[in-house]
Amino acid sequence: MATIDLNADLGESFGDWRLGQDEALLPYVSSVNLACGFHAGDPHTLRKSVALAVERNVAIGAHPSYPDLLGFGRRDMGLTPDEVFDCVLYQVAAVKGVCEAMGGRLHHIKPHGALYNRAARAPDIAAAIARAVVKLDATLLLYGLAGSCLITEAERVGLRAISEAFADRRYQPDGTLVPRSQAGALLTDAQESVAQARRIVREQAVTSRDGQAVVIRAETLCLHGDGPHALAFAQAIRQALEADGVRIAAP
Amino acid sequence: MATIDLNADLGESFGDWRLGQDEALLPYVSSVNLACGFHAGDPHTLRKSVALAVERNVAIGAHPSYPDLLGFGRRDMGLTPDEVFDCVLYQVAAVKGVCEAMGGRLHHIKPHGALYNRAARAPDIAAAIARAVVKLDATLLLYGLAGSCLITEAERVGLRAISEAFADRRYQPDGTLVPRSQAGALLTDAQESVAQARRIVREQAVTSRDGQAVVIRAETLCLHGDGPHALAFAQAIRQALEADGVRIAAP
Amino acid sequence: MATIDLNADLGESFGDWRLGQDEALLPYVSSVNLACGFHAGDPHTLRKSVALAVERNVAIGAHPSYPDLLGFGRRDMGLTPDEVFDCVLYQVAAVKGVCEAMGGRLHHIKPHGALYNRAARAPDIAAAIARAVVKLDATLLLYGLAGSCLITEAERVGLRAISEAFADRRYQPDGTLVPRSQAGALLTDAQESVAQARRIVREQAVTSRDGQAVVIRAETLCLHGDGPHALAFAQAIRQALEADGVRIAAP
Amino acid sequence: MATIDLNADLGESFGDWRLGQDEALLPYVSSVNLACGFHAGDPHTLRKSVALAVERNVAIGAHPSYPDLLGFGRRDMGLTPDEVFDCVLYQVAAVKGVCEAMGGRLHHIKPHGALYNRAARAPDIAAAIARAVVKLDATLLLYGLAGSCLITEAERVGLRAISEAFADRRYQPDGTLVPRSQAGALLTDAQESVAQARRIVREQAVTSRDGQAVVIRAETLCLHGDGPHALAFAQAIRQALEADGVRIAAP
Repeated sequence: MATIDLNADLGESFGDWRLGQDEALLPYVSSVNLACGFHAGDPHTLRKSVALAVERNVAIGAHPSYPDLLGFGRRDMGLTPDEVFDCVLYQVAAVKGVCEAMGGRLHHIKPHGALYNRAARAPDIAAAIARAVVKLDATLLLYGLAGSCLITEAERVGLRAISEAFADRRYQPDGTLVPRSQAGALLTDAQESVAQARRIVREQAVTSRDGQAVVIRAETLCLHGDGPHALAFAQAIRQALEADGVRIAAP
Repeated sequence: MATIDLNADLGESFGDWRLGQDEALLPYVSSVNLACGFHAGDPHTLRKSVALAVERNVAIGAHPSYPDLLGFGRRDMGLTPDEVFDCVLYQVAAVKGVCEAMGGRLHHIKPHGALYNRAARAPDIAAAIARAVVKLDATLLLYGLAGSCLITEAERVGLRAISEAFADRRYQPDGTLVPRSQAGALLTDAQESVAQARRIVREQAVTSRDGQAVVIRAETLCLHGDGPHALAFAQAIRQALEADGVRIAAP
Repeated sequence: MATIDLNADLGESFGDWRLGQDEALLPYVSSVNLACGFHAGDPHTLRKSVALAVERNVAIGAHPSYPDLLGFGRRDMGLTPDEVFDCVLYQVAAVKGVCEAMGGRLHHIKPHGALYNRAARAPDIAAAIARAVVKLDATLLLYGLAGSCLITEAERVGLRAISEAFADRRYQPDGTLVPRSQAGALLTDAQESVAQARRIVREQAVTSRDGQAVVIRAETLCLHGDGPHALAFAQAIRQALEADGVRIAAP
Repeated sequence: MATIDLNADLGESFGDWRLGQDEALLPYVSSVNLACGFHAGDPHTLRKSVALAVERNVAIGAHPSYPDLLGFGRRDMGLTPDEVFDCVLYQVAAVKGVCEAMGGRLHHIKPHGALYNRAARAPDIAAAIARAVVKLDATLLLYGLAGSCLITEAERVGLRAISEAFADRRYQPDGTLVPRSQAGALLTDAQESVAQARRIVREQAVTSRDGQAVVIRAETLCLHGDGPHALAFAQAIRQALEADGVRIAAP
């Protein structure tokens, strides 16, 4: 029986500002990635989000980022590997402790935004993240882009790496994502997105922009929580996978 | 044989800005309080400070604060008890995790600045801090002003409370500190400060501003690391106590 | 012919986080108060908000705050008068320059949140704000709570002070607002709020919590932009005042 | 008679943290660049620094940066040109207003750190900075690296561009600076630095790393205020230039 994890970001509000549809998205996912306070999230939002995730019994991840609240962690920053190590260690430590205080347990780490993208292509940054995680707790899982060097570096230090794929992003023939700056980067049709999710789970492949089949071995699919159609997409993907007999569960 | 802990703040640099004399102060103390990033400290400073404290084998504490980097946590802020709980939990969790990642272990918590002062007089704030600490790890010690409600509230939730006294602050007849805004709040003469430290340890008392003996039962003395004479004071106090046969050790 | 200014806060988004209904609220107001980056707002939000206000031809104010992004400037902070002077000067200077760069002109200053409340009751803080404004530009108007010491201190340094009243807040017999922490602080019924606005404009009075008439001489009414009914209230108040023949215009 | 401007950064403290030797450096410079709060500086530091510069009668510049307090603005960040425009406009507006409030006048803008370096090589970023400055006040001068695209873009929008050279940095044959990451980037010998300053002023040239003469037409020389030998270098350069009969004055 095929199994897949469905993950989504959670706790990306900040102070009085709300973002995402945390409560509404939770029924569709098996794991969540909690903002740690560097691109979003704050001590209050984090504690409430942990409590919510514990109550709903989804696997809890930390979602560390570059220190860029104004840019929501989406702008690349020239941090050195040592600076990345320190920033990831601090953020993951905070989330791990809050989880344990609220009766939960930290399950995984998934880097956010520009840090995720840089970790997918820069081995020294990927290695810095992996070292920070293994230093803190070698039983934690590390989520990264399928086929990227974050997966390689996580395994090199002995972590269990979880390969991630996207139902709503278009792929290039080499297995990388079409950059968001290019047309067609996002799948905006729900049926197309559902079809991509099903193909990833059943055939471990996607159809790339130019029609080729590309092998993508993934253990988790990312569901987005923002945008007007996020909930409809999440619901449609979950229903389609369950109808296929796929088991939805965190690794 | 009398025993006393000598504690000092550590890791209060931020980014490129340096503060304190961390390396030079360490030989004189048995425990340190590490800035957590809210009034000072940052992920790099924290990791380096933890490594230094582990290497020197001093007991490591977290030094949580109001979120006020610009004011160095010294200005009172109208946080609710719930906001204090969340802020303390986040900061202590971060330091605890970084300690464990670097091969150390978190030993205690001491609130910083305006939060320390408010926790000494406001039972709801003191209780919020105590609850955050006990939620995270009930074996942690909580340092607070001797005779204040932070000690009471820490004990109420089952924490071991450590009463703190000051060698370089003048006391009022009721056992509280002369506010810094008043003349004579600080002892600026090294010999007077040494005498106060010795009397606290040997007689559990200080001489208040108006000449009365005031009972102060303390298990730890705070040594300041800033100011031109900080190191000289720290050295003089340590030497005088050791000459008295007092054992310097963390609780 | 009676004249009143209707003011609302604008530009209180931050980075990716949205707040308020800036576009929708603008048709109902004659002046706006722009967040300056300390409790909300950022360089991008500010520039866009200035452009919007210039385009719609409403009077532009700066809305300076305590430096407390996480608390949205709503928590009191123990800044000294000198610190308040510096913070207000910096924020107002930034907004003034951005206004001029975008083809507009700064018209007034209205302190935000906890700073507004403290300036209403603490003459030294009120004076610090007034001094900062007059140093920058003595032709700027300073909005403050009707009857409060901010009005007195503004006039003392030669500024034109604009007294503000609230259509949706309940008053105490002494002319101060019922604190938000008490029941009945907010008028939640649109008709009651409209009636209070009309009475302020026509009779320069409100009915206090205990049924007494209280004199409130105001040149501006604050319209809130957040909350589910904000737009409906704003529209109802504007329509009722216009139906009464009141001219809506900035001072 | 040859004339040169000597400029230095000022006001790079933050809150309780001190940086630089502002008072001691001022006698050697004719212009200063004030941190605006994004990489360093804060409302209090800025106001005091402006007052100091006004008192000493040196030309005052704004020193805008990426929003990166933790990294001191030295890490590259992927801001878009529009984001750079907004950030520069906000920062320069704040400094301009504070100058005017304190009886001074803003004279120039010099981008800081990673933003300076990016503006030297990326025409779209350079153009964004130039547009922000000209929008605010077309009479302001814009300092940039001699021979870089910031000079070109400043002139394209009608600003007076001031070419800057460095007495303590080694040059490459193409007129760019040897990156700090490479050995020999910095001139550590005072006499060598003095010789380079004199050659820039008298011959409009430097000797590059490989011994070639490189033409550098500069109107201002940067003096660094940090580092153990900063004051000695500044003093030596000023004395040598004055001994040569060079007039030290802001453009």
